[in-house]
Amino acid sequence: MDVKGILEKVREGKMSVEEAQKKFENLPYEDLGYAKLDLHRSLRSGFPETVFCEGKPDEYLAKIFETLYRENGEVLGTRASERQYQLVRALVPDITYDPVSRLLRAEKIQKEKTGLIAVCTGGTADIPVAEEAAQTAEFFRCRVERYYDVGVAGIHRLLSKRENIRRANCVIAVAGMEGALGTAVAGLVENPVIAVPTSVGYGASFHGLSALLTMINSCANGISVVNIDNGYGAAYLAAQINRLAEKH
Amino acid sequence: MDVKGILEKVREGKMSVEEAQKKFENLPYEDLGYAKLDLHRSLRSGFPETVFCEGKPDEYLAKIFETLYRENGEVLGTRASERQYQLVRALVPDITYDPVSRLLRAEKIQKEKTGLIAVCTGGTADIPVAEEAAQTAEFFRCRVERYYDVGVAGIHRLLSKRENIRRANCVIAVAGMEGALGTAVAGLVENPVIAVPTSVGYGASFHGLSALLTMINSCANGISVVNIDNGYGAAYLAAQINRLAEKH
Amino acid sequence: MDVKGILEKVREGKMSVEEAQKKFENLPYEDLGYAKLDLHRSLRSGFPETVFCEGKPDEYLAKIFETLYRENGEVLGTRASERQYQLVRALVPDITYDPVSRLLRAEKIQKEKTGLIAVCTGGTADIPVAEEAAQTAEFFRCRVERYYDVGVAGIHRLLSKRENIRRANCVIAVAGMEGALGTAVAGLVENPVIAVPTSVGYGASFHGLSALLTMINSCANGISVVNIDNGYGAAYLAAQINRLAEKH
Amino acid sequence: MDVKGILEKVREGKMSVEEAQKKFENLPYEDLGYAKLDLHRSLRSGFPETVFCEGKPDEYLAKIFETLYRENGEVLGTRASERQYQLVRALVPDITYDPVSRLLRAEKIQKEKTGLIAVCTGGTADIPVAEEAAQTAEFFRCRVERYYDVGVAGIHRLLSKRENIRRANCVIAVAGMEGALGTAVAGLVENPVIAVPTSVGYGASFHGLSALLTMINSCANGISVVNIDNGYGAAYLAAQINRLAEKH
Amino acid sequence: MDVKGILEKVREGKMSVEEAQKKFENLPYEDLGYAKLDLHRSLRSGFPETVFCEGKPDEYLAKIFETLYRENGEVLGTRASERQYQLVRALVPDITYDPVSRLLRAEKIQKEKTGLIAVCTGGTADIPVAEEAAQTAEFFRCRVERYYDVGVAGIHRLLSKRENIRRANCVIAVAGMEGALGTAVAGLVENPVIAVPTSVGYGASFHGLSALLTMINSCANGISVVNIDNGYGAAYLAAQINRLAEKH
Amino acid sequence: MDVKGILEKVREGKMSVEEAQKKFENLPYEDLGYAKLDLHRSLRSGFPETVFCEGKPDEYLAKIFETLYRENGEVLGTRASERQYQLVRALVPDITYDPVSRLLRAEKIQKEKTGLIAVCTGGTADIPVAEEAAQTAEFFRCRVERYYDVGVAGIHRLLSKRENIRRANCVIAVAGMEGALGTAVAGLVENPVIAVPTSVGYGASFHGLSALLTMINSCANGISVVNIDNGYGAAYLAAQINRLAEKH
Amino acid sequence: MDVKGILEKVREGKMSVEEAQKKFENLPYEDLGYAKLDLHRSLRSGFPETVFCEGKPDEYLAKIFETLYRENGEVLGTRASERQYQLVRALVPDITYDPVSRLLRAEKIQKEKTGLIAVCTGGTADIPVAEEAAQTAEFFRCRVERYYDVGVAGIHRLLSKRENIRRANCVIAVAGMEGALGTAVAGLVENPVIAVPTSVGYGASFHGLSALLTMINSCANGISVVNIDNGYGAAYLAAQINRLAEKH
Amino acid sequence: MDVKGILEKVREGKMSVEEAQKKFENLPYEDLGYAKLDLHRSLRSGFPETVFCEGKPDEYLAKIFETLYRENGEVLGTRASERQYQLVRALVPDITYDPVSRLLRAEKIQKEKTGLIAVCTGGTADIPVAEEAAQTAEFFRCRVERYYDVGVAGIHRLLSKRENIRRANCVIAVAGMEGALGTAVAGLVENPVIAVPTSVGYGASFHGLSALLTMINSCANGISVVNIDNGYGAAYLAAQINRLAEKH
Repeated sequence: MDVKGILEKVREGKMSVEEAQKKFENLPYEDLGYAKLDLHRSLRSGFPETVFCEGKPDEYLAKIFETLYRENGEVLGTRASERQYQLVRALVPDITYDPVSRLLRAEKIQKEKTGLIAVCTGGTADIPVAEEAAQTAEFFRCRVERYYDVGVAGIHRLLSKRENIRRANCVIAVAGMEGALGTAVAGLVENPVIAVPTSVGYGASFHGLSALLTMINSCANGISVVNIDNGYGAAYLAAQINRLAEKH
Repeated sequence: MDVKGILEKVREGKMSVEEAQKKFENLPYEDLGYAKLDLHRSLRSGFPETVFCEGKPDEYLAKIFETLYRENGEVLGTRASERQYQLVRALVPDITYDPVSRLLRAEKIQKEKTGLIAVCTGGTADIPVAEEAAQTAEFFRCRVERYYDVGVAGIHRLLSKRENIRRANCVIAVAGMEGALGTAVAGLVENPVIAVPTSVGYGASFHGLSALLTMINSCANGISVVNIDNGYGAAYLAAQINRLAEKH
Repeated sequence: MDVKGILEKVREGKMSVEEAQKKFENLPYEDLGYAKLDLHRSLRSGFPETVFCEGKPDEYLAKIFETLYRENGEVLGTRASERQYQLVRALVPDITYDPVSRLLRAEKIQKEKTGLIAVCTGGTADIPVAEEAAQTAEFFRCRVERYYDVGVAGIHRLLSKRENIRRANCVIAVAGMEGALGTAVAGLVENPVIAVPTSVGYGASFHGLSALLTMINSCANGISVVNIDNGYGAAYLAAQINRLAEKH
Repeated sequence: MDVKGILEKVREGKMSVEEAQKKFENLPYEDLGYAKLDLHRSLRSGFPETVFCEGKPDEYLAKIFETLYRENGEVLGTRASERQYQLVRALVPDITYDPVSRLLRAEKIQKEKTGLIAVCTGGTADIPVAEEAAQTAEFFRCRVERYYDVGVAGIHRLLSKRENIRRANCVIAVAGMEGALGTAVAGLVENPVIAVPTSVGYGASFHGLSALLTMINSCANGISVVNIDNGYGAAYLAAQINRLAEKH
Repeated sequence: MDVKGILEKVREGKMSVEEAQKKFENLPYEDLGYAKLDLHRSLRSGFPETVFCEGKPDEYLAKIFETLYRENGEVLGTRASERQYQLVRALVPDITYDPVSRLLRAEKIQKEKTGLIAVCTGGTADIPVAEEAAQTAEFFRCRVERYYDVGVAGIHRLLSKRENIRRANCVIAVAGMEGALGTAVAGLVENPVIAVPTSVGYGASFHGLSALLTMINSCANGISVVNIDNGYGAAYLAAQINRLAEKH
Repeated sequence: MDVKGILEKVREGKMSVEEAQKKFENLPYEDLGYAKLDLHRSLRSGFPETVFCEGKPDEYLAKIFETLYRENGEVLGTRASERQYQLVRALVPDITYDPVSRLLRAEKIQKEKTGLIAVCTGGTADIPVAEEAAQTAEFFRCRVERYYDVGVAGIHRLLSKRENIRRANCVIAVAGMEGALGTAVAGLVENPVIAVPTSVGYGASFHGLSALLTMINSCANGISVVNIDNGYGAAYLAAQINRLAEKH
Repeated sequence: MDVKGILEKVREGKMSVEEAQKKFENLPYEDLGYAKLDLHRSLRSGFPETVFCEGKPDEYLAKIFETLYRENGEVLGTRASERQYQLVRALVPDITYDPVSRLLRAEKIQKEKTGLIAVCTGGTADIPVAEEAAQTAEFFRCRVERYYDVGVAGIHRLLSKRENIRRANCVIAVAGMEGALGTAVAGLVENPVIAVPTSVGYGASFHGLSALLTMINSCANGISVVNIDNGYGAAYLAAQINRLAEKH
Repeated sequence: MDVKGILEKVREGKMSVEEAQKKFENLPYEDLGYAKLDLHRSLRSGFPETVFCEGKPDEYLAKIFETLYRENGEVLGTRASERQYQLVRALVPDITYDPVSRLLRAEKIQKEKTGLIAVCTGGTADIPVAEEAAQTAEFFRCRVERYYDVGVAGIHRLLSKRENIRRANCVIAVAGMEGALGTAVAGLVENPVIAVPTSVGYGASFHGLSALLTMINSCANGISVVNIDNGYGAAYLAAQINRLAEKH
């Protein structure tokens, strides 16, 4: 909100006090009644708003996608179901759906990808979360390399990829069960590591709590943690870091 | 380890097989018996190794500081007590101690600080953790701005500093109790936010667990979390991001 | 129970000892065998008894509604399913059902609404709990205003509604995930805030536990908490406060 | 912040754009560097700011009390130690200290007390928390009645006080161990009940967690919960409700 | 095992060493391969063995019932499903099934019931667990009285039944949500109270954990606790106490 | 309270309405201001009230002992410290103190002990809790036998005492660490077992939580649980059962 | 990796630097893109790699079995469903499926079994986990004896098998509910005991957490614990111990 | 207990029935009243009984050491304090004390050590627990090698010791914080790994719970877990395995 510009217009009589007063209240979002879409978000944060689909009522979902796609020229939905894909496709024919990552995606424009983010997983069962991260990062214009099934129980698999992973501006380490991948990766690279605990496991893994605690307690430097299974959140953060690294 | 270079020397007969074999085993750390100091760490990660002082036996502590200071020309110790300061000072007279952040620090060289990291706290009781973060980041050659006591319960205090905070390459949000500061900050800036839950609070705060859960569950974008009271860890990560942003 | 009146009647011989003895045992509820309906509750507490439908055996449910509706002229059921609606409708044709709030409701009388309660949500997924709160408060004769999707991650949305929310006698703040809405609202208004954690979220939200802890640990003044997803409980309390504020 | 007034001054040329811009940034708190005192708080919320003493650094504490007392003519500190009392008394000779409630308190003015708040405890060990609540409510100009040691294990003690307790605008129910007092009280009165779990107990009481869960899960109507041992928080809320009830 | 008798036979040459050795290994249970049925249990403990049906494989279940019924003349199964009832009925035609308590039951003999056990519940939703307790106690030859829906939120309902409940040798208090019934009952009677937490509730009741903690922390005397929803366990214990009280 | 008698007096004019009204409010406890002593408790429950000393303010403690001892002729205090013993001895010279069980005790009368309670422990570290139980039971006129250090890790030690333990009306099983003693004992006897988890242990014993969970989940019949370290509570319950068994 | 041999070849010119460099990167696993199969594992660890089937995508599963079976001549899959069995059978006709243990298994070779492992369970409901352990151990060439339903609540059943169990090189103790079997077994034998908590139970068993804590806190010597329901993990460890005991 | 031998003696008249009966009851422990010392334990389990000193009453401690040392010729005490050392030394002059491992130890005989156990730690702060393990194993006649400070955050330090560690019959992996060492070691060796979580860490490490969960959830094969900080327990188990491996 350009406070100074508005004030100058008021002083110069180009804008009435009432108009100005309104401006201060008029915030840059569209109110659909049921949801306040943040249309100017891509201006403010540099990334377009995405839609967390899980649990969204059917009647709202497609409309939200349509509005965002119309305004932004691109739209990304996370945690979508096959059924939600069908609903959205009726209004947004360009939409595509990836059942592994559960992402809905439409882009009018061809995007160039820059920088480098490495996405690693401890096992094959962590791939869905990793793909949510990887494809979201690509949607946010990052170049992505995938290193899957390189967990700590077979440490030589990770070590053989070390040089590649070190080149990334940021590494996303996705792991469930005991979740030690983040620490091992952070010990090998010099750029930030974002650890994503997954709910993969059984017994005392407590749906990802064990992996979350492991990662939060990591004794390695340069590692931080997002919520369990939150591949999207890791990708957003990685894209911010990648953008900072490539901005010049 | 320059594998190719060693192999070429072997082929050219400039290095014996035995010497080469040794090289592969000879890893870049100094073994003091009780601790394996990673002296080349500043080469590999770009940041010198620091010492987590809490619980370190007296007989080792001063020796570790002395070795690191001699080799690296600078040394940082975290979670140090007044008593440990006295111990270290006997061997490293240059050492200084800050009782708020509990940091021990000695630097032979004058360092230039670059970029910008903003350190925010929810309340005044979070300041010790925030200072650990701020001073560590400065040790790692980052320029730091402090915004203390800007918690969500008085949201106007945070909003009045918004433009300043937005300029930082990375924001460290330090908060205990309900820990909502991270989310509020992440909603205002476009660069990464590192949330540090603190053990400040009482009752059902469970020594920081409540703040940790709040931050991990943040619905804002661009936020990740480190361990409770881990100001050092946040600073390390922030310094990595700051370096990426300023590296060109 | 008018102890004095009964005693006077006994003294004056207008009531036998046996009758009086019975009175003291005769409490104002109807015993259906399986449930003790508190028919005079609206006299005692000022609000009619409501029915928590979830898990109630089919054979009891409709009978309870019928008895309460016959005696009180109005009845409210919470956490009802579509199937339970069909069961109740067979005996109470006036009953209506709202699938979002899952409320069953019948009122013979037209009620006037007074005072003001504001119901806010952090996101759109919190709306079902918020509607349970809002419609229950209306059933209890309160005027209600809704402010949905005003969470802390986009704090400007909340701030733009600030003046409206401040007018309420009581604010109900409904939020899941990190649950910081309660603190932010309590920092803006001068009347009581009732925080309702919701089970909205995933990963480490632990079905609302994280939001509950956040709210219980709030460092704002004037905030208290009810159970996870307990929109009804918040509304009851808000209606009590609203009644106190409007009683003169 | 009087937006309209400022804008009119700008239009009329009575205030420069720069001054107006500053006004929008100039929020009504005093920045001591280490703490942002909310001096106008009593205007905004109707209650003066209080000081949470536990863990406040010595060098700040007395200064904060002095500033608040000078500006507001009254000041209240919670969770103060005997030692802190000595520190504050050096700068604020009027200060008094109550070792049971651990409150520090100074009031230049004689306050009239209105309305009625009832403070109940389950046992005698809950009295310190109850006194924090009772005296804070009195500081906030409420009339208070105390009903101590009326726990559920001897329900006749509570019942004998029933009529007195029912007269209060708000009841604060303080209990540790199994914490059932809140539910029992809420079943007897028609006004709001604020339940305060205490850390009194041993074994599986887990420092108040058990009482907290009991109270949050209460099946009674009209009950909400604050943090463990948070007598101050309960009093603040009760004072808000009392003010609403007495405001006409 | 009559050690002396066997030894005397060995000495007198009436039993060979090998036979005696076997006797010491031959314990009084029938080994079905998949389950070791304790057929002499009714001799040893005074109560016949019962079958926990939940999760028992189909192929074993009916056979176990048949064996026990044949040997003991009576059999009780807990946590049985409708489907398991059908399975058992094929082999044991006398079996009956109660869908509320989920008990399977067959008795060849007419049993006399003695003593008195009172079974109370906090609400109507606790009735299934209470019926498991009540009917099991009846199976174990106890006279049982039921007092349902007498929870603490409407304490007058419990008080009006006080004299009846006091007559019981043992009271079983079944309650979910905040689980305060046990404490209230124990404050009213002089005989032992067995508290059964139920999984009834939602939100922070955590499937009965809250009620369990409440009951374990009860500040009343004469109360102990069994597992969540364990009506059977409470009944077994109550029957032991009832037997002790009536044994003369 | 003799309702009928009072009513008859009112009818006959022997008691005024006001007096009668008072009677109904006048409950049988003495109000010391800070604590409501239940002096008639020994009439009502059959056991005299005991004093939980831990945390009781010094100024109240001795007075409470004196009042109870004067009225009841006997008094028992639990969780007393050496220092509290000195305080009480000043007013109640007959008082004795046992540092292992931490019980304070004075009895004017010589009591006969009846029945039998067996107190078992898993290890030697559980003895303090076991002695609290054993001596409390003796105070409540039970005969007690002690079987210490008979834990499950050396099951032959328990088995060698089996016949003795089976003779008790009730067994108190005291164990920390993994807490399996309760189950093993319950499998050997036919009378009720009261399990007392202790806070003995380290690491993942979590101050008795592990033992508590073990005991609550016991698959043996006839076992119930009291709070961690609650030897007194177990003894109270055991004394009730012993009294029932011996009452004829 | 034969470092010396490669280096000698390089020196002698028999291998180019590039080839040698590759060797160091070429680790002994086959990369299927989605999973890195450790084909030489049986060489390195002595046991062939097994497949954790639960959650494996359909398209990968059969292919992984086929590859491992072709390379190793044997393959074992754990936690397989009936449906997965059908999928694998299409590519690996030799595969067999056991619905109790949920193991998929194919072996080209006839294996000799050596040593002895005893597998015990507390109850019949623990048999599925025990069978996963027993059959896995047999797959790893161990001789196995089963002792089922020998839980602590009927300790004589365990004692009667004592001599048999003592002969085993390693005992696997499988138990849910209170999980005391491990301690009892460890008190009877002199070889290692591996305790497997199971998720069998209800109420406060928390899906095996209670049993896990019991076993971790065991006061017996010679006992260690694997994850809840992890029969496979226990078998692997037992097979390692059995191999050590039989290796000469 | 030689059942057959005794029976034969009875048959042959060499032993009376009463004597035989006694034999069956006479279990091989010495009853000191307060503790049942298992003097024949070294015969039965092959290892002498050790004393857990923490919390043992002063009057018992020295006597227990004296008895065990006299009977067994060697004695080991764990978790001993300096003060306890002084107490024991008065009765057992041969006793030695190591303040790092907190072990008390006396051995009359010179023991030969066989086999090999490797003890690894993640950091230097884990050394006290590791030394408890290492010295206990040596007391149990095992040869021990120590590999300290080889945690996952600097994985090259562990890899450089790989060949040495692989030679051990059993590896004890001691680690706090995120506790990933166990998994990494188990991925490198073919013999059993016993993981010991330590309480080293801060914040969300929850006194070792995080490390415990990590280790229990390990996705590596051949790993099991003992209690937090339980170096003794790990050593006992490792000594059993070492003995099996070396027994031929």
